[in-house]
Order: sequence, then C-alpha cells, then structure tokens
Amino acid sequence: MNALEVARRDRRGALQRLDDLLRIPSVSAVPEHAPDVRRAADWVAERLRAAGVTDARVDETPGHPVVYGAWHVSPDRPTVLVYGHYDVQPADPVELWTTPPFEPTERDGRLYARGSSDDKGQMLMHLEAAAAYRDADGEPPVNLVYVIEGEEEVGSPSLAGWLEAHADELRADVAVISDTAMPAKGQPSLIYGLRGLAYMEVCLRGPNRDLHSGQFGGAVLNPANALCAMVARLHDEDGRVAIPGFYDRVRTLGADERSELAKVPFDEAGFRGAAGAAGDWGEAGYSVVERLGARPTLDVNGIWSGWTGAGAKTVLPSEASAKISMRLVPDQDPDEIGALFEAHMKRLAPQGSVVEVRALHGGKPALVDRSIPAMQAAAIAYRDTFGREPVYTREGGTIPVVAMLDDVLGLQTVLMGFGLPDDNLHAPNEKLDLDNYNLGIETVIRFLAALAEGDRQPGQERRT
Amino acid sequence: MNALEVARRDRRGALQRLDDLLRIPSVSAVPEHAPDVRRAADWVAERLRAAGVTDARVDETPGHPVVYGAWHVSPDRPTVLVYGHYDVQPADPVELWTTPPFEPTERDGRLYARGSSDDKGQMLMHLEAAAAYRDADGEPPVNLVYVIEGEEEVGSPSLAGWLEAHADELRADVAVISDTAMPAKGQPSLIYGLRGLAYMEVCLRGPNRDLHSGQFGGAVLNPANALCAMVARLHDEDGRVAIPGFYDRVRTLGADERSELAKVPFDEAGFRGAAGAAGDWGEAGYSVVERLGARPTLDVNGIWSGWTGAGAKTVLPSEASAKISMRLVPDQDPDEIGALFEAHMKRLAPQGSVVEVRALHGGKPALVDRSIPAMQAAAIAYRDTFGREPVYTREGGTIPVVAMLDDVLGLQTVLMGFGLPDDNLHAPNEKLDLDNYNLGIETVIRFLAALAEGDRQPGQERRT
Repeated sequence: MNALEVARRDRRGALQRLDDLLRIPSVSAVPEHAPDVRRAADWVAERLRAAGVTDARVDETPGHPVVYGAWHVSPDRPTVLVYGHYDVQPADPVELWTTPPFEPTERDGRLYARGSSDDKGQMLMHLEAAAAYRDADGEPPVNLVYVIEGEEEVGSPSLAGWLEAHADELRADVAVISDTAMPAKGQPSLIYGLRGLAYMEVCLRGPNRDLHSGQFGGAVLNPANALCAMVARLHDEDGRVAIPGFYDRVRTLGADERSELAKVPFDEAGFRGAAGAAGDWGEAGYSVVERLGARPTLDVNGIWSGWTGAGAKTVLPSEASAKISMRLVPDQDPDEIGALFEAHMKRLAPQGSVVEVRALHGGKPALVDRSIPAMQAAAIAYRDTFGREPVYTREGGTIPVVAMLDDVLGLQTVLMGFGLPDDNLHAPNEKLDLDNYNLGIETVIRFLAALAEGDRQPGQERRT
Repeated sequence: MNALEVARRDRRGALQRLDDLLRIPSVSAVPEHAPDVRRAADWVAERLRAAGVTDARVDETPGHPVVYGAWHVSPDRPTVLVYGHYDVQPADPVELWTTPPFEPTERDGRLYARGSSDDKGQMLMHLEAAAAYRDADGEPPVNLVYVIEGEEEVGSPSLAGWLEAHADELRADVAVISDTAMPAKGQPSLIYGLRGLAYMEVCLRGPNRDLHSGQFGGAVLNPANALCAMVARLHDEDGRVAIPGFYDRVRTLGADERSELAKVPFDEAGFRGAAGAAGDWGEAGYSVVERLGARPTLDVNGIWSGWTGAGAKTVLPSEASAKISMRLVPDQDPDEIGALFEAHMKRLAPQGSVVEVRALHGGKPALVDRSIPAMQAAAIAYRDTFGREPVYTREGGTIPVVAMLDDVLGLQTVLMGFGLPDDNLHAPNEKLDLDNYNLGIETVIRFLAALAEGDRQPGQERRT
C-alpha cells in the first residue's frame, strides 16, 4: 500500500484524532485556558512522535509553547517547513452554538467545533500525511520540519523570537501552511496574497467618573457620543478609509491582475448567504473579490461604554472604548498605519476629552512568488486530488507568520488551504468539511511527492 | 422637649437607622436582588410603625411592593403626601468604589453608600421627623400619608396603577418629595421644574451572524461602524439634538426666567470639578444652568457590540446596540419624542441593516406652581434651618412621579432636596452629607409646623 492508500484506509482514525484534539479548549486569548493550551501542545508533540517524528518537543516561550519537530531523511532532498497552530479563538457567544464548541459534532458531512477549520483540522492534515508515509514507506519523500505554535490567535507575539533563536534547526527550502479557505467546495486555490492587520484599541475619556445623565446631561461631553462621532469619521461616503495617508503605500491593482481576479469563481450567493443583506457594502469602484483581498479596510471589532445590562440606567459614562482593526495590503506597514490611526484619532478627539490608543496586534501583508517549484508542486497535487486546476487568488485574512517566515528565515510560503468560505471562523458554529479533511490529507501526500519528484527533474534548480 | 430638640438629641440613632437601611442592596433593576428589595420594603414599613404610623403596610404590585402608611391626626388639618423610594441603582462598576457600596462608611462628615442620597437618606428624613413629633408631641402637626415605592430607578412601572387603585387613601393637599439636590452646601433651593425622560434602546443588525473580519471585512456592512455613524448624526455642530421635530414643543425660555435662573448661585467650579474638562460642553447659546434644567438633551447611556474582552478578536459583529436617553422639558412628551427618535433612527439606518427601537422608560417633564402655601412653608423651613433664603431653580433630573401625582391625584409637589451636586448619584462612591441629613430632618419638622401654622392663618385658603 502506498501512502495514499494508507490514508484512505485510516480515515476513521484520522477523524478520531481530530476529535480528540478539538476537545481541548486551547483558547490562547483567555488566561484561564493556559493549562488547556499547554495540554494541546503536549498532544501535538505526542502526535508528531506517533507519526514518526521521533525528536518532537515542546519549547517554552514567554507566552504559550511552540511545538517543534523534524524528520530529516536525506540532505539531498528538499526540506519543507510545515507551520500550523494549535490554539483557537474564544468560543463566545457560546449560546449561539448549536452544539457545544468543544464537543465536536458531525452533521451533514461536517464536523462542528471551535478550531475544526482554524487551524487544528488543517494542521493535522500534515501530521496525518507524514504518518501515512511512515506506514507505507517508512519515511516521507522529503525532509520535514514542524513549527506548530499556540499564539496565532493572539498575534504570535513569541514566534519571531523563537524562530530567530532556532534558525539553525529551521533551515528549509520552502514553508507550507494550511490555514486558509478554497473559494468553493471542489475548487482548490493557491493564495498568493494575504492582507496584513493593524488592530488597535481606543479609549476616550471624558468626565473623571460616571455621572448622572439628568444632573449633568447637556452640559458635559459624553465620551460615548463623542467616540461614535470619531468612528463615523473613519470612512468617507464612498466606503473609503478616511485616515490621512492611509492609502499612500497601497499598490495600485493593475489591469492584468484585475482581469485575473475576475476569473476567480467567487461564490457571491454563498457570500451573501453568509452575510445577509449586509453583504452589499464596500468601497466604491471595486468588486467583492477585490474588496476582500486586494483593498485595505477598517472595521470596529468591538465597542463598549456605560450601562450594557438590562433596563434603563441613566448614566453619563466617563469613558468609551473600541477595538478597531484595519486589514492592510502591500505595501502598507502595520506600525506606520497604527501611527496614522493614532494621530487621526487624536485629531478627531473633541475638546474636553483625552484619547488613548494602543496597538494590540499587527501583521504585515504578504505576496508570494507564484513561480517557485513548491507552488507548481502544490498545483499538481491539487489537480490530481480534486480533478481541477487551482485558481490563483488573494485572501482577505492575515497570517502574520507568512511575512515573519520571510523576514526571519528567508522562506517563501505555499498556502494550501482546505477551509471553505462558510466555515464560520472566529464565529459560532465553526465547522470543517470532512471531504476536505480527507482530500486535504491526500493533497499533502501528493504535494510532498511532487516536491521530491520535481526536485529530481534535471534542469530544475533547487532553491536554497 | 420639642420635636427639633428630640431630633437633635437622637442624631446618632437616626444615623444608625440610615446605616441599617443602606446595608440592604435593594437594586430594583436586577432580578437577583428582588428578595433584597422586598426586605427593604419590610424595613421601611417597620420603621413607619416605629415612628408612630401604626397602619403602615406593604402592598403588592406587578413589580416591587409599595409601602403605604397614614397618620391622620385631624380632618381640620392639612394632609401632606410624602413620596420617596427605597430602591437603588445598580452599584456597577463596583471596582471603582473606595469602600463597598452596601457597607456604609463615614469619611469627612459624609456617608458613602449606594442609595445614601438617592433616595434612602432623603426619604428617611421624613420618617425621622415624624418620629420626633411622636416623641415630642405624641403626633405630627398635620396629617401624613406615605407612599414609598421600590421601582423609582426602573421607571415606576407599577406606581400609576397603584395610585389609581388607592386614590381614596391618598387624599391630600400637597405632596412633598426629597429626592433632589441643593445647588451648593448651605444654599437651599426650591425646584419648580424637572426634566422628563425618554429612554430608548436601539439594536442595529447587519450580517446574520458574527463574521471573520479578514474573510468578510471590506465587503460587508459592519453594524458597529454603522451605529456609530447614526449616533454621530443625533447632534448637530452646535450641540443641538438633530432629530426632526425634537424642539417643536419646547417652551421658549423667557427673558424673565433667564434672568432669574442667572441668579442661581451655581457652583461652576464644583460642577467642572465633578465633570473635569468634559464640563465645557453643551448647546450653543445657553448657560450651564439653562443647559441642565431648561433645555432638552440626548445622551448615549450605554453602547455595546462585538468583542469587548481582552486582546484582539477579529470579529465583524452581527449587531450593535445602544441605550440612548433624552431629557425633556415642557411641553415635550416622552411618547412623542420616542416616536420621533425611532423614525429618525429608521431613516438613518443604512441599506443592508435592520434597526429595532424600544422605549425602556419614560417620564413627563414637570413645572410646579411657586405660589402654593406649601412652597411658602418650605421656604420658611429652609430659611429658619439654613439661615438663608432658598433660590428657585430647575433641575436636570427626572422624577416621573411628580407628573404622575398631578395626573392621577391632582397634587402639586414641593421638592425639598437635601442632596449635593457631588453626591455621585448613579455612580461609584455615592454619598450623603451628614450635616444635610441632620438639617434635612429639622427642615422637614419646620416644614410641617409652618404648613399647619400657615393653614391656621386667617384669609389663607386651603387648596383642596
């Protein structure tokens, strides 16, 4: 039996292992879950060892641990660095889940659980592929290095330092990450662009304490009203971000790229189904695919002030806060955009208020070179597994580690995503399509084979 | 010993009784506190009985109970209806209290506790005055009827029905309420105007579930951004409320009244001290006293949407909500203003969103006739107790019961307030000035005497 056959015979086992990992509520943002995050790290290291990666280990960091593993089969073969993350988003609001977020439940060929798609399911595909090679051939066809972190959902604060400290152990030819989505079921894609992120928190303070709105209302600046007015001025009438300088470094979309993006079989009905009537919004002059992948945005992710419980508390709140994030495109820089945002908020803050701005999280946008051998190997693997050529597209999300792997290790990244647009990432009822889980494992198996094969072809240079 | 002397000798006892009542967390807005609210009602009824009001009782309502008591000494004497409330606002945010909200603590001659000023302390002054008369003279100089309710902080939803059902037992010549503030320590005031209230809750829905801001941001209407834009459009550049029709029924302030209000010794330094730099805000063209008492306002009392916990959750929220209240002046009507607000919010809601507006709480504005004998009796009592004539003013807060007592029972209300502007009503560290507690009891004693005296003067007609 070859590795593909092994994987097909062990689908039930692969599903059981995914189920086990999804039961661990490894929410990296919530301090109370730190022991669960640690438990998930240990689980991943143990699973690496079971897959044949005998030197897997759990490395401490200032935050949550990084799981490292390496399986070097021959210095003559290419080395692939597999990145993934075992931490998950919070499950709130829990009451909107049909079944509990940490009790994986299968319905209609989908597995519902927090982290099923982002990223435990997609990360495990790579471990399952390695295990299949171990059982079929005793070893994989290429050298493998694993970096599975536990802080992706909080901005990977410890990862760059860890990568720098372990650069010697991380030498590779290319990186691969499965943490993105295909545009529609059955239609694979290769993402060559990712948006960056500048995630800010703003606090506007007015009176020095909460006041009675009857005794003070009308003669005191209300920071909740004032913050709303400031947020309202962050977009113009055309849906453009109204922060001075915001678009200065945005690369203009060329006619070639626009016509190529127009070919992406984007599921507009599915998109509108997911977003409802709200899915008719966006920057004037751009298609939905362009708005999502190739244009920067600004969204309020959270806002809070005053009395939010039941009933009518007549408070004039002393402060109002918002979490506001901007998705960035090349060549915007998160630090620079954060500084422009802060300067603008300070300009907008009315007299009698004090504004405080903090950057919570940042990631650079990324564009990947489509001509590298690993992209071609991925295209072959997709075509042979799904029976269809992948489309090339840009994705709206942010994987800061893509820019980090380039910065620290000089690695290009192939993004082999097996999620779907309706996977409910970061939302209630996150799910993974189980066909995609099984086909994902097969695609990874074919990808590693194609990479080894391509590498042996004469006239093809190894990237070093 | 006369009643004044009795009260002065028993100051320690009066403080102990206030302390006892303040320890009961009778928060009417929070269902979990219903047993505490009930306990406070029983305490008040018991205290009425101890003060000599033998037929005091606790009446059920659809909500929290009303405490009723009556002490009819003679059909020839005037009857005063004393209104007060034994419920309190929630104590949140509890962490900002210097000492726990339901453990009364004395510092610098002030008693810190939730409800100390609003309204347990001020309400108890009336019970203490009755008790002093009982001990000194065996009975008070006028007939007394007590209505002490437990739903004032949630808009008195059961009170009008209860008043109507018990109108026979509530016959009186005038009502008196101590639930307001003096403009400064040592300067009594008689409030002849109160603002009304229309308290609304708005929910704006966009996408049908929370979305990932990377996967959807830029192509989906964000209801948090949209709600901010709507709130921003509720005021114009001059600080005026921008709801069409909002000012249609507002009585113009005459030159006479403006010059009289200008005489109020308003403590601007104290006001700015309480509000900080935020205290420089307001409608163009009006003084602070006018903004607070004679002009209508609009304030966000609470706003919430999306992720409000620690860290960076990249959610594009499906909905955003706000509590927004408007303080009203004669002749604005809360129902009419609520309808104008709702129509305006529906007009402002962008395509792709659905807005829902609910009225949570309403109260009519009130103006009291300054020429009635009870106002004169109050002025005498203030002058004799504080050594200073009271000023006549309007207050920014809302006491819906003032309009209700007029509507249901045909009673005018004398507002004898003993709070101070920095009492932190509805906010952390609420306090009551203990000099005002003691002088308040004496003022009530003198008020009842002056009322009985004035009533016996020839040529003065009893109002019926």
